[in-house]
Amino acid sequence: MISEDIGKKAKIIDNIIESFLPKEEGPAKTVMEAMNYSIHAGGKRLRPMLMMETFLMFAGEDPEKVLYPFMAAIEMIHTYSLCHDDLPAMDNDEYRRGQKSTHAMFGEAMGILAGDALLNYAFETALSAFDTTTDANRMRRIAYALSVLAKKAGIYGMVGGQVVDIKAEEKSADEVTMDTIKFIHENKTAAMIESSLMIGAILAGADDADIKTLERIGSDVGLAFQIQDDILDVTGDEKALGKPVGSDEANGKTTYVSLVGLEKAKEDVAALSSNALSELACLEGSVNEHGIFLKDLIASLTYRDR
Amino acid sequence: MISEDIGKKAKIIDNIIESFLPKEEGPAKTVMEAMNYSIHAGGKRLRPMLMMETFLMFAGEDPEKVLYPFMAAIEMIHTYSLCHDDLPAMDNDEYRRGQKSTHAMFGEAMGILAGDALLNYAFETALSAFDTTTDANRMRRIAYALSVLAKKAGIYGMVGGQVVDIKAEEKSADEVTMDTIKFIHENKTAAMIESSLMIGAILAGADDADIKTLERIGSDVGLAFQIQDDILDVTGDEKALGKPVGSDEANGKTTYVSLVGLEKAKEDVAALSSNALSELACLEGSVNEHGIFLKDLIASLTYRDR
Repeated sequence: MISEDIGKKAKIIDNIIESFLPKEEGPAKTVMEAMNYSIHAGGKRLRPMLMMETFLMFAGEDPEKVLYPFMAAIEMIHTYSLCHDDLPAMDNDEYRRGQKSTHAMFGEAMGILAGDALLNYAFETALSAFDTTTDANRMRRIAYALSVLAKKAGIYGMVGGQVVDIKAEEKSADEVTMDTIKFIHENKTAAMIESSLMIGAILAGADDADIKTLERIGSDVGLAFQIQDDILDVTGDEKALGKPVGSDEANGKTTYVSLVGLEKAKEDVAALSSNALSELACLEGSVNEHGIFLKDLIASLTYRDR
Repeated sequence: MISEDIGKKAKIIDNIIESFLPKEEGPAKTVMEAMNYSIHAGGKRLRPMLMMETFLMFAGEDPEKVLYPFMAAIEMIHTYSLCHDDLPAMDNDEYRRGQKSTHAMFGEAMGILAGDALLNYAFETALSAFDTTTDANRMRRIAYALSVLAKKAGIYGMVGGQVVDIKAEEKSADEVTMDTIKFIHENKTAAMIESSLMIGAILAGADDADIKTLERIGSDVGLAFQIQDDILDVTGDEKALGKPVGSDEANGKTTYVSLVGLEKAKEDVAALSSNALSELACLEGSVNEHGIFLKDLIASLTYRDR
């Protein structure tokens, strides 16, 4: 039921993102092809989906003009991070979701440049939201949303998390503490979930208290999502997941599960998820169609088996 | 005389940039160190200097609040591009300006991440200009300046130029045409000179016709600057330049000079430079202290011997 709704919405979001992608033309065409290739490689479009539903939960009104550029932008930032994570000097992955990764397809230089281009184009795209209004209040919202987008993607968010992840991989397993694992999950993953929810609310005109609440919800959801990832690497079904399990243990990797054990990890996911859902229930709009979808989406993310 | 003025202004600009750099702290400290290392590696601070002087030529007033974040941002973007250009998969340079390049100092993964972090932080920094005002007109100027910053740095500017440069290096010399060389220079170099001049004017409240004129001036100056680079690789003095000459010919590289010859290249630099200077002379403010400095600065860039 929820997975059907998610699938339908993902298709709508794909069309929205598509409308913001660069045309593949001119002397620098290759990099546009590489950008679009990596965006088309798919994914669940989770971040723009969270953003859109949060916006609609608060606003009800047609989001097209101001929200759509931000939905495309956050997916571009997410995609650039995957592009660069896959590079030989980082995780060195030749494949992602069964397709060749960007650098494997276009060469290493173009893998770097496509990532750079996507990050830059994300800001170009989000900035186009200013073209939709001359109203000072609406401009202030767009400026606020842009600053959240930038902050959560950078050294105080996603990039910071990736840096600590890379450093942790260079350490021996027993040097990696729970603080480090939490820092990585909270920054590498949760920061962009936070910004998705926050930007939806900001653009819809939500008040500061609600935006703060959504930041906490995003943090809990992001952390729960990543702990569930660690759990599924132990208990998951290879067929359902579509990837091998047990790789963390085989690689001697310190994870949330290896530090606290499987039972405690499951308890923590349940606690984080329940926390997020009760905070969400206090928000205005949480009982409308979009609030209910958001609740189901969050539950499905933290209780997923794949 | 002009070089003394440039030196003084560069020191002032260094202090401005410094005030926007991230503190080196927290679990992701390494990437902040790498970012600051690459900014501190120096350079002429040409882009923020052009931006500041253009602003002052038009506005006369204290630029601190709205302009400074953009001056820091454009230098961060310039520095990220050098960080990534030096990577093994790109130009593979271990040294830049006599110092170890960022990836040589901090490792390849951190070289990639420091570049990503600088690009992202550039937007974080420039976006902080919105904190200086609640006036709708000033917000519109900031939004316009941000969109110019993003566009000229991305696939329709600097990144586009870098992509074509990388592709040209894979080709044999006789496949590289004048159109390609011009595209590279106009995008990889001139686009960021254009945005420096344009942003200074936009933030000072210059009108659209003047902003367009400055875009053309930036294009001429950027192209002349790069042709002069090619010329100096043939005629330059190794001591004055501080780098070996003749490397283009030794590497069989197609350059502006190899395509049209030394004399024609010199004529074109003179024509571009004179074009830029006469366009500048028509702008309001071009006879004030900052307009005169700008004129001298542009002349010194295109007629330089190092």
